[in-house]
Amino acid sequence: MAVIGVGLMGAQHAESLARRTPGARLVGLADPQPGLAERQAARLGCPRWTLDYAQLLAEPAVEAVVIATPARFHADAIVAAAQAGKAVFCEKPIAHTLADANRSIAATQQGGVPLQIGFQRRFDPAFERARGLVNSGQLGRIQLLRSLTRDPELFGAERVPPGGIFFETLIHDFDVLRFLAGGAEPVEVFALADALVVPELKPAGLLDSAVVSLRYDSGAMATADASFQAVYGYDVRAEVFGSEGMASVGEASPIRLVHHSRSGSTQPRPRWFVEVFGEGYAAELAHFVARVRGGQSGPAATGEDGRAALVMALAALRSVELGRPIRIADITP
Amino acid sequence: MAVIGVGLMGAQHAESLARRTPGARLVGLADPQPGLAERQAARLGCPRWTLDYAQLLAEPAVEAVVIATPARFHADAIVAAAQAGKAVFCEKPIAHTLADANRSIAATQQGGVPLQIGFQRRFDPAFERARGLVNSGQLGRIQLLRSLTRDPELFGAERVPPGGIFFETLIHDFDVLRFLAGGAEPVEVFALADALVVPELKPAGLLDSAVVSLRYDSGAMATADASFQAVYGYDVRAEVFGSEGMASVGEASPIRLVHHSRSGSTQPRPRWFVEVFGEGYAAELAHFVARVRGGQSGPAATGEDGRAALVMALAALRSVELGRPIRIADITP
Amino acid sequence: MAVIGVGLMGAQHAESLARRTPGARLVGLADPQPGLAERQAARLGCPRWTLDYAQLLAEPAVEAVVIATPARFHADAIVAAAQAGKAVFCEKPIAHTLADANRSIAATQQGGVPLQIGFQRRFDPAFERARGLVNSGQLGRIQLLRSLTRDPELFGAERVPPGGIFFETLIHDFDVLRFLAGGAEPVEVFALADALVVPELKPAGLLDSAVVSLRYDSGAMATADASFQAVYGYDVRAEVFGSEGMASVGEASPIRLVHHSRSGSTQPRPRWFVEVFGEGYAAELAHFVARVRGGQSGPAATGEDGRAALVMALAALRSVELGRPIRIADITP
Amino acid sequence: MAVIGVGLMGAQHAESLARRTPGARLVGLADPQPGLAERQAARLGCPRWTLDYAQLLAEPAVEAVVIATPARFHADAIVAAAQAGKAVFCEKPIAHTLADANRSIAATQQGGVPLQIGFQRRFDPAFERARGLVNSGQLGRIQLLRSLTRDPELFGAERVPPGGIFFETLIHDFDVLRFLAGGAEPVEVFALADALVVPELKPAGLLDSAVVSLRYDSGAMATADASFQAVYGYDVRAEVFGSEGMASVGEASPIRLVHHSRSGSTQPRPRWFVEVFGEGYAAELAHFVARVRGGQSGPAATGEDGRAALVMALAALRSVELGRPIRIADITP
Repeated sequence: MAVIGVGLMGAQHAESLARRTPGARLVGLADPQPGLAERQAARLGCPRWTLDYAQLLAEPAVEAVVIATPARFHADAIVAAAQAGKAVFCEKPIAHTLADANRSIAATQQGGVPLQIGFQRRFDPAFERARGLVNSGQLGRIQLLRSLTRDPELFGAERVPPGGIFFETLIHDFDVLRFLAGGAEPVEVFALADALVVPELKPAGLLDSAVVSLRYDSGAMATADASFQAVYGYDVRAEVFGSEGMASVGEASPIRLVHHSRSGSTQPRPRWFVEVFGEGYAAELAHFVARVRGGQSGPAATGEDGRAALVMALAALRSVELGRPIRIADITP
Repeated sequence: MAVIGVGLMGAQHAESLARRTPGARLVGLADPQPGLAERQAARLGCPRWTLDYAQLLAEPAVEAVVIATPARFHADAIVAAAQAGKAVFCEKPIAHTLADANRSIAATQQGGVPLQIGFQRRFDPAFERARGLVNSGQLGRIQLLRSLTRDPELFGAERVPPGGIFFETLIHDFDVLRFLAGGAEPVEVFALADALVVPELKPAGLLDSAVVSLRYDSGAMATADASFQAVYGYDVRAEVFGSEGMASVGEASPIRLVHHSRSGSTQPRPRWFVEVFGEGYAAELAHFVARVRGGQSGPAATGEDGRAALVMALAALRSVELGRPIRIADITP
Repeated sequence: MAVIGVGLMGAQHAESLARRTPGARLVGLADPQPGLAERQAARLGCPRWTLDYAQLLAEPAVEAVVIATPARFHADAIVAAAQAGKAVFCEKPIAHTLADANRSIAATQQGGVPLQIGFQRRFDPAFERARGLVNSGQLGRIQLLRSLTRDPELFGAERVPPGGIFFETLIHDFDVLRFLAGGAEPVEVFALADALVVPELKPAGLLDSAVVSLRYDSGAMATADASFQAVYGYDVRAEVFGSEGMASVGEASPIRLVHHSRSGSTQPRPRWFVEVFGEGYAAELAHFVARVRGGQSGPAATGEDGRAALVMALAALRSVELGRPIRIADITP
Repeated sequence: MAVIGVGLMGAQHAESLARRTPGARLVGLADPQPGLAERQAARLGCPRWTLDYAQLLAEPAVEAVVIATPARFHADAIVAAAQAGKAVFCEKPIAHTLADANRSIAATQQGGVPLQIGFQRRFDPAFERARGLVNSGQLGRIQLLRSLTRDPELFGAERVPPGGIFFETLIHDFDVLRFLAGGAEPVEVFALADALVVPELKPAGLLDSAVVSLRYDSGAMATADASFQAVYGYDVRAEVFGSEGMASVGEASPIRLVHHSRSGSTQPRPRWFVEVFGEGYAAELAHFVARVRGGQSGPAATGEDGRAALVMALAALRSVELGRPIRIADITP
């Protein structure tokens, strides 16, 4: 396995592959920023590193790649990897445009290689159990869904790309809202978004807070919200409500301690996504390795899933721009 | 005190006035359905009962009235009571039309009598504490809100009036979304609604499930949802998220027992609104009596609050009809 | 109904009788402290007050009395009331000595009047549900129990009577440990106790912290602990564990708000016992009134229950003195 | 690293060393049961396996050993490993007799090798945080502690050694009760135990349920309980209560899903100890490897800690036999 792009998520995946993923061997790292791949390779005992990922794609020892570059480079990397016959795990979002998503999927299909998108919530034990309750029919007909993502802190607000809250953050919720919908697909999206955390960057186009509502082809309805700054810590939740019951995920902090003081009974909250999703990140890579090895198990997160979430993000962004609901079917390349 | 309309809520209020409201004495009951007021009067030891509430309004012994008729009769009853110089406590919604709300408020102003609307969540200890966190600034600038109401069971779906989910159920959430917004006022509402619980009544106009998103004049944003049937029990929650923290209300069941079995750890849930809001119902009447007696304390729920929530409901219903967001300012009599 | 002793608990009960207990009428208050009964009578609109409770017992209008004097006066008051033919509700503990308990019970039996002890936890909805799970067999054979009581603050440590932590505080836990044991009875008690909150009063005999373990005739085993000062607030919990499952009571705070801040997710805790047991206090009086009126429902708390808990407290205190387990059968008058 | 004894825990540790412990390399497995070490070696890609651990101790490539044999063989294995100059990680309990514990500790001291006992709760994030609250003084003077361990199911009750509930299960609680006591040491132990899960094996000496109370040199007091069969799942909790507050660990299930149905709101519970303590098991080995490598961090679990917990278990067992409290100081080899 090789990792292309070893920033925050790439380094996390590289470490998982090197140390925690049975069946995987980390053999190469690539990053155009000088010194970065080299340092990570030294830290993780990885034999190859390069500034140019084309070199890794040329290596026969590399069976599969994890792509964790900035999202605007995803499509080129997926296409190149697919043409080189490598299996592809790509961080979310699959792309920033529908055209890029389409050519990425097409390339992996033509190359006959697997493509998995980094929707790690699908591999979190609690989300998986919720999915199990939905798919087994225990919740009955699905009627209402809710999902939210709130990050603990907004660093570098000025570097957030336009629409980043939809493409980078709510993209997870969009995927969850499909993952837990029992097969229903969104048909219409309405979104509100604003710069409430850093209002002074609103003129520069920052959107740091958003709420979304949507309707499915089944008649079910959903809401989602996101914020780039929840001072109380990392907050990810979902809820799926049906005619026979409800599943809620992530209401309690994963830290199983309560501190009772004059202030009340306090549960500490995680401030770092790996505290919440460490298991999910490990499991999605294990799943990918199993696919590459020919086995397969558990929930998938395919290129089509990546495209469907991207289309929802594009619809949400257009809804903000136009101030009205947008039909999913109206999003075209 | 007299009670006009002794159906479910009227009987509940009458019992509170007779037995649990210091300073109040229940002296009359009125209901046009033969036998109803008579039976409740016997049960509660109430000296007067009548089919025609005009008789109670003519009684000097009646200082104040609780109006719990069907909502379409609220305005006439408020106006009559105000003209008779009685203080008025009126169940929500204040009315079904803005014109009715306006003439009700005008009549109480002209009569110089207090008007309180039955938004009992404002008097629930947890909602009150959340309001305290908002108003003291402990949550910082308010950015995102969520509220929801789900009833345990839908009886008599065919008798639900058009828009009932907005006028009767979400009206509470609309009030909460103002109560916890730190003074911000909604400016735009978008709503989706459908018959998901009883789809066969959709042709007859039933809306039994709804999601709403809205934007405030402060830039804050909110979502709400409602369902007429949550099989797991009565479910009322709210959440207010600001730059300095968040308050959530109602996440746990009020029943402080956990049953641990082979199925897991189960907390029973209430199926009856009085199990959740018994304290709030008692407190709102105590507050009203204190106002009538000349004192006053705690949060109010004025006629203006009733009208503001009604306007949100009207906007939500129009949004469903037109399929686009509706500006609050566009709702006119 | 009349109330004898209108200190903290007596005043609470008097207010309940005056305002919240259907079927009851408060007609007299007695307290030897000058002015106390008079002031409460004025506050509650109670027609009679006296320094000497014998006067109330002589009143034919008084059908029943609530005894809330200091515990060492309970027996005399119970006997006098029983001889006057009044039904008796007596605050816990029934007495400080087994001889006093016996003569109290005997007097009520001879007088043919009901005797109920103020174990309000039996009337709390969560404790009642736990009892229901035990008695219906849903928890299987009962094997392990736990109970604890911690008060928020210790005022007047120097006035705590010797053994007060057993007679006044753990007496509740002793009753709970019988109430939830499915009919099993304690046979042996071992206790540790110390002055950990106010160590400087240890020479004066203060015991402000205690842990107890005990064995039942069924083989089941239990622990309890108590402290006079839990800075985080009032803390009452119980747990009953059987071959088919477990019930736990009181783990969450009754305040259904969570405040999420940089410190974590905090639930406020009650600092006042009425916040926790308001419903239980009302229900135990309602039950007593129903018994007096000839009806009866729900769990009882009889004189025998009061004596059984007292015997456990006496055994625990002797265990502390002798440093070894004490058999219940060895506690004799 | 080599692992001696590859039953349940040994195999778990071997897998951790092979796959999840940075800095460690698994080079040998030993188990006297034919085929067992061989199969695990094949599964984990471990180069050496043997029936006789003496062969591993003779290998210079083996720097350190993990001992996971039945407890009665621990002392011999520790002594042999120490004499061979290997660092030792030994599963709990360190031994079944004080003499064995003493010679184990002496051998590692003479050999100048580290000895760590498998008290993984010390490495669990929630227990570590509780310890931090204690040691930083945030809980004030420690007054009361509670700890409990309940396993989901009792297989092979007839094979449980006498006193197994103290030596194998409560040994964890005894360690926790020292770990969270802020430096206080137990001075007296009282225990009750019985065969309540499998009463028919009581004649054969089975003890499957126990409660313990104890007193510390600081005056603090504690209780613990254990059961070999909690049908609702694996249950491990602890609580430390001081003059300034309380920490509780493990109250909620680690599975962050709630299923709301007609039965109520249900949280699934883990039935497998690795679901709860996976992180603790990984962290204790990482800590051991760091010590072997010359670094060190976080809480220790030394041979002396192992001995102290063993002494508590011996005192508890003797208390059950004699029916009275036992002083820690009276436990001698």
